[in-house]
Amino acid sequence: MLILGIDPGTAITGYGLIKVEGSKLTPLNYGALRTGARQETAVRLSVIHSNLCNLIRAATPDVVAVEQLFFNTNVTTALAVGQARGVILLAVAQAEIPLVEYTPLQVKQTVTGNGRATKQQVGYMVKTLLKLETVPSPDDVSDALAIAICHAHLGSTLDRFARYAQQ
Amino acid sequence: MLILGIDPGTAITGYGLIKVEGSKLTPLNYGALRTGARQETAVRLSVIHSNLCNLIRAATPDVVAVEQLFFNTNVTTALAVGQARGVILLAVAQAEIPLVEYTPLQVKQTVTGNGRATKQQVGYMVKTLLKLETVPSPDDVSDALAIAICHAHLGSTLDRFARYAQQ
Repeated sequence: MLILGIDPGTAITGYGLIKVEGSKLTPLNYGALRTGARQETAVRLSVIHSNLCNLIRAATPDVVAVEQLFFNTNVTTALAVGQARGVILLAVAQAEIPLVEYTPLQVKQTVTGNGRATKQQVGYMVKTLLKLETVPSPDDVSDALAIAICHAHLGSTLDRFARYAQQ
Repeated sequence: MLILGIDPGTAITGYGLIKVEGSKLTPLNYGALRTGARQETAVRLSVIHSNLCNLIRAATPDVVAVEQLFFNTNVTTALAVGQARGVILLAVAQAEIPLVEYTPLQVKQTVTGNGRATKQQVGYMVKTLLKLETVPSPDDVSDALAIAICHAHLGSTLDRFARYAQQ
């Protein structure tokens, strides 16, 4: 199964594609889509949308995972992140790929065992779990890979629960 | 000049197309794009985006006007409105139409003469200025027309200032 994790933002949208075979996780492609601060917002959103459409077309993920919500920030930031998140969800819907959402708490809990883990702890565990030589940077890239790892763990657990419930 | 005003929202996105000839304002088309609460967010955003793309293609506006920001609400609402706003700005950028943004204060001040006007006062002035028989409802439609009227007034004033500055 191929999982594409995305951490939305207007300036930097992190992405991370991982391959899951049983309990083995392999990072295939990860990085950051960046837009210039001097560009108009509508143009920046258009750049994010078209780059992500291309990325999804090339990566052919089975599922896309994004963070569900965040609360520890201000209204202006929420509006800006919401705009980026909107064009990302649109690209996923247009590609007709299933979308899963996890809260920051679920992502941190699953990846580090601690729902209140720091960004550094998340980055360290992403590096360890994916056997990378360095922590992927900026944080947005680590976070995107963490969301994908979260689905690799929780998605299969939830699938087992669903199968168990059907028996 | 044709101005399309938009009031973004996930459940209801209000829109209003007005024609400006000198000081004469004519409402050409206004209404609400609605999405079902039971649909997934990504699907709702996709519905808003494709409907708005069709609307822009049919209406051929010279400019699209949206509200710039809002502060008097909570983070969860801001994120949701941001997502709808994101796909709307994307549709405008993809159609290569100029986008103008006004604060709620500018819209209320321009349309009613009072920056702290109520929704009822805005609705009443929209009805009066556009010579409509009733106040357009829901509020999202009145608000979208108010944003378009705001640009009809302020846009030409700003143009005059720009010409004056160039002399």
